[in-house]
Amino acid sequence: MARGFRQKIPQKNTENSGFGNSASGRFINKDGLPNVQRKGVNVFNRLSWYHTMLNLSTFRFLTYLVVAYILINIVFAMIYYLIGVEHLTGIDKSDPLNEFIDVFFFSSQTFTTVGYGRIAPVGFTASLVATFEAFLGLLTFAIATGLFYGRFSRPRAYLKFSDITVIAPFQDTTALMFRLAPYKNNALTDAEVILSTAIEVIEDGVAKNNFYRLDTQLGKINTLALNWTVVHKIDENSPFYGFSEDDFKNINIEIIVHVRAFDEVFSNTVVQRSSYVSREIIYGAKFTKMYYPSKENLTTVLDLDKINEYEKVDLPILVEEQL
Amino acid sequence: MARGFRQKIPQKNTENSGFGNSASGRFINKDGLPNVQRKGVNVFNRLSWYHTMLNLSTFRFLTYLVVAYILINIVFAMIYYLIGVEHLTGIDKSDPLNEFIDVFFFSSQTFTTVGYGRIAPVGFTASLVATFEAFLGLLTFAIATGLFYGRFSRPRAYLKFSDITVIAPFQDTTALMFRLAPYKNNALTDAEVILSTAIEVIEDGVAKNNFYRLDTQLGKINTLALNWTVVHKIDENSPFYGFSEDDFKNINIEIIVHVRAFDEVFSNTVVQRSSYVSREIIYGAKFTKMYYPSKENLTTVLDLDKINEYEKVDLPILVEEQL
Amino acid sequence: MARGFRQKIPQKNTENSGFGNSASGRFINKDGLPNVQRKGVNVFNRLSWYHTMLNLSTFRFLTYLVVAYILINIVFAMIYYLIGVEHLTGIDKSDPLNEFIDVFFFSSQTFTTVGYGRIAPVGFTASLVATFEAFLGLLTFAIATGLFYGRFSRPRAYLKFSDITVIAPFQDTTALMFRLAPYKNNALTDAEVILSTAIEVIEDGVAKNNFYRLDTQLGKINTLALNWTVVHKIDENSPFYGFSEDDFKNINIEIIVHVRAFDEVFSNTVVQRSSYVSREIIYGAKFTKMYYPSKENLTTVLDLDKINEYEKVDLPILVEEQL
Amino acid sequence: MARGFRQKIPQKNTENSGFGNSASGRFINKDGLPNVQRKGVNVFNRLSWYHTMLNLSTFRFLTYLVVAYILINIVFAMIYYLIGVEHLTGIDKSDPLNEFIDVFFFSSQTFTTVGYGRIAPVGFTASLVATFEAFLGLLTFAIATGLFYGRFSRPRAYLKFSDITVIAPFQDTTALMFRLAPYKNNALTDAEVILSTAIEVIEDGVAKNNFYRLDTQLGKINTLALNWTVVHKIDENSPFYGFSEDDFKNINIEIIVHVRAFDEVFSNTVVQRSSYVSREIIYGAKFTKMYYPSKENLTTVLDLDKINEYEKVDLPILVEEQL
Repeated sequence: MARGFRQKIPQKNTENSGFGNSASGRFINKDGLPNVQRKGVNVFNRLSWYHTMLNLSTFRFLTYLVVAYILINIVFAMIYYLIGVEHLTGIDKSDPLNEFIDVFFFSSQTFTTVGYGRIAPVGFTASLVATFEAFLGLLTFAIATGLFYGRFSRPRAYLKFSDITVIAPFQDTTALMFRLAPYKNNALTDAEVILSTAIEVIEDGVAKNNFYRLDTQLGKINTLALNWTVVHKIDENSPFYGFSEDDFKNINIEIIVHVRAFDEVFSNTVVQRSSYVSREIIYGAKFTKMYYPSKENLTTVLDLDKINEYEKVDLPILVEEQL
Repeated sequence: MARGFRQKIPQKNTENSGFGNSASGRFINKDGLPNVQRKGVNVFNRLSWYHTMLNLSTFRFLTYLVVAYILINIVFAMIYYLIGVEHLTGIDKSDPLNEFIDVFFFSSQTFTTVGYGRIAPVGFTASLVATFEAFLGLLTFAIATGLFYGRFSRPRAYLKFSDITVIAPFQDTTALMFRLAPYKNNALTDAEVILSTAIEVIEDGVAKNNFYRLDTQLGKINTLALNWTVVHKIDENSPFYGFSEDDFKNINIEIIVHVRAFDEVFSNTVVQRSSYVSREIIYGAKFTKMYYPSKENLTTVLDLDKINEYEKVDLPILVEEQL
Repeated sequence: MARGFRQKIPQKNTENSGFGNSASGRFINKDGLPNVQRKGVNVFNRLSWYHTMLNLSTFRFLTYLVVAYILINIVFAMIYYLIGVEHLTGIDKSDPLNEFIDVFFFSSQTFTTVGYGRIAPVGFTASLVATFEAFLGLLTFAIATGLFYGRFSRPRAYLKFSDITVIAPFQDTTALMFRLAPYKNNALTDAEVILSTAIEVIEDGVAKNNFYRLDTQLGKINTLALNWTVVHKIDENSPFYGFSEDDFKNINIEIIVHVRAFDEVFSNTVVQRSSYVSREIIYGAKFTKMYYPSKENLTTVLDLDKINEYEKVDLPILVEEQL
Repeated sequence: MARGFRQKIPQKNTENSGFGNSASGRFINKDGLPNVQRKGVNVFNRLSWYHTMLNLSTFRFLTYLVVAYILINIVFAMIYYLIGVEHLTGIDKSDPLNEFIDVFFFSSQTFTTVGYGRIAPVGFTASLVATFEAFLGLLTFAIATGLFYGRFSRPRAYLKFSDITVIAPFQDTTALMFRLAPYKNNALTDAEVILSTAIEVIEDGVAKNNFYRLDTQLGKINTLALNWTVVHKIDENSPFYGFSEDDFKNINIEIIVHVRAFDEVFSNTVVQRSSYVSREIIYGAKFTKMYYPSKENLTTVLDLDKINEYEKVDLPILVEEQL
């Protein structure tokens, strides 16, 4: 492949990305997390269980809780069973299975501190284990309380990014554009976008990545209530200056997006990242409008389903001429 | 209507508001939230239930909790009833209604983990459901704990804005003024106000909005303990330069206010927004003083009920002359 | 009193304090809260109960909790008593007092969800009230959990200020100095001090306050581990330039101190304020050292009891000469 | 020892460290806490128990909880025992030890609110103590909930620093380098490093410390996903300019590192500090690469066990020549 475009790309990195020049694969995954795998260091030290618990989906989080609850009760049921059911009152001693079922329920009634008392400990050992189990139960729910709160109070931007970025006409040249919109009933202010790009170049036969900061038109916005179309003008200062449609297809490009805003309910800065790679760039297209006045003209309606809608347009011939 | 004033308004936006030029209705509601309606995207994905729960009034929040509690107990009561009351001890079996009432109370005693034990499960299925209900109860109260904490620890500015803004004499010209005061026993420092305006203009028969940043005199304040009168001087740099009383009445104007401060109890930045539209502007008025020394001269008394008090004044003739 | 010094004081405020020129009494109390009283607005709207609860001393907070607990149980005991003790099992019916005592304990066992079951509800009304009381109990403890957490996780600077500020020799002139030190096992970094002053002047027979920002030498510090002596050099730029010992005594001066730092355990900015008035200024004194190496020279010992220790010194004659 | 190097060291501090010139021993411990001991002030006032609880290891924290739980129950058991076991139902009165064991378990069943009811209070005094104990239990678990949440939600950087810092060739001179990497599944952005140094000099026979800010190449980084090698170039602006290998060995040097970053899960700024002293500086060495592409070239693997791996290199002769 004749990479004739390569001399167009400025050789100097203008961005300290934190990724090495020779790192591999996508840098930032679509969900905003860096595409890096860690090894070495004990796995327990390598995982922050709090970060892990907060990143779980709600379904998996609840499933883990239920499974943990059942397992704990099975373990304690076995302990009570080994101690002997004669140290518990009210056990159905008709057969071993019924005995086990009853100690299991006794365990759950202790762990949750419901303690009906129909089954109750009488001997020293069983009472001691029950004493410990009730304590463990309360601590477990203390932790669960913290996790629930941590999960739902975690400040998040709730931004929806367009799946694609377009190269559209802009002023007398072209611009790279994508858009984003808050999709929940949160109120974001003082939003700011930081845009950078990694472009793969071949030097002496070795692929390496150069990083560039991309300028944006209006990189800050007061109130992020409607959609926000982020615009990077492709002029002499852009590393994409002079790129043809083929260049955008053939060169490994990654656009890294970093949005910060202030959420008024969390009273905290929220951050969301995303990235676009070459195959997510549409050359010669512009977004269609995604908001309109309500019927009574009293409010503005933002249609989030239209965030990816665009129409094909011709780009000014300028780009080709300059090559 | 002869909108002769239109040429007075600078044509260039000086503010990136985040609202489109053709958005409709008030931009920021009086309570500070943007006047935008979202559609598309599933409604469950569009609502952050945490933001919703935090924005509920205390009365509605508590009502929701009580209703949820009763509904959950009715559901579980039905389950226990279907399983059969013979699997519970101590049920009053005189008639079906009494049976249902007793399983309802059994459910509530399980859900809250009070577990008196007068009614207690004996069979496998009833015990299993009770095991699950007690667990659910604890998780529910874990969530409630988080919500309560989230609600009352949510940093808020507790600022009271004057309902109206006045056009008052200021130095050798006029100024737009409104005032605000902290109305609770919170201590705000490093307060800052950002003021912008949207002015509707008719271009080629189409209404569109221009946005301007408004300069303020003393836009920052160290300690927000008394009231703060925010002053926007109407001079050559103001988009309102040369506006007559009629202009303020007839043109669609919206003043958007954004206040940030640091609260020392929350140790957090708090933000409050509000807005004023044309009908909330009083032309030719000035606010009267709302604080005075205490009797013993030992402290300063801030009378919050006076926040909207003003007196009519004549404005300098200058404004009209310049037209 | 011949206030001959007045012409020395620059007439222009250099500081937007947030206090009116005619506010009365001390501006900032020694504990850092502004000396302002609010009236108007309903008292319940004027108090943030969360701010109130967080500012209570530990002793008063716990006392309020215990009193609330007892009152709630008395109220519910009265309700159960009115419903009739025959709707509760296990009541000692020997006399009305014993009955009341037993329903009181039944109430507390329900509210805390301990539910021994020796006393248990049997009728519909009593069961219903108990259902509600257990629910209320859990919500109350949910709120208590939030308050406890809010109280002890509240970021605070834990700074001890010297009770006095001194006018000490500094370089070729004098300086106003006070000091502060962290007195707990917290680690503060990036500390910053902002110093301002209010000086009362008599204009046309009316006392008013002028506000000035005071420059500090080294207004920022990396690690606030030892004591920090804050130094305001009294040179031509200082509003105190040319003040004699009598001036410091006779003029109403208030030095307002605002310290910000980053606490690594709270991972939050913490703020502490204080103020010094005329009678807390010692003219002609310097602080003595309050830290020294440990015996083995391995660490530095900070003696917090010495924070107010100073020795009298002569000030350079320069100050008087310039008058 | 001929400290011939001393004249090389710039005499003026360029850094306001917060440590006195005559402070003793290491300034910042390896764990980032300042090496300062406080005395004076009552010990209870000097300790923030919340900071203490958050800094405990998990094992010690849990041990403290269990020990507190056992002690509280022993205290209450003694109280019930003194009141008399006849005020409790269901006590095994075979001998005093069994009585004590049973009141101990009654206490634990009350404190955890499990309340089976097999043992239940009947008299006034015992009931009153139980009422108070259940209340105390709930408050204790409210506090425990807060502590658990405070512990695991505490924003931390989870950075691993190399144990050593190297003096490596860099451009046409040398540089001091160390590296750090996030070792957990947290995502840090906007990382920033602030580097300063304390160099001990002998003036008039007295050892004192001079503090300098050290410039870094690329002191900020966008995404802290891989390792970050922090580089301080040793040129004319560096206080280490002209230092020989012996100088680095013999002079008491401390490099103080302060890293700030934004964690997206905590949505908070996290800070981590560390320090290097003379014996942790390797002269003439460079770090080996610690990340490489995965087999399928789809991601980058960061091997945390290699963080301290370096190889010896010759330094450019330049350094010696300039002496």
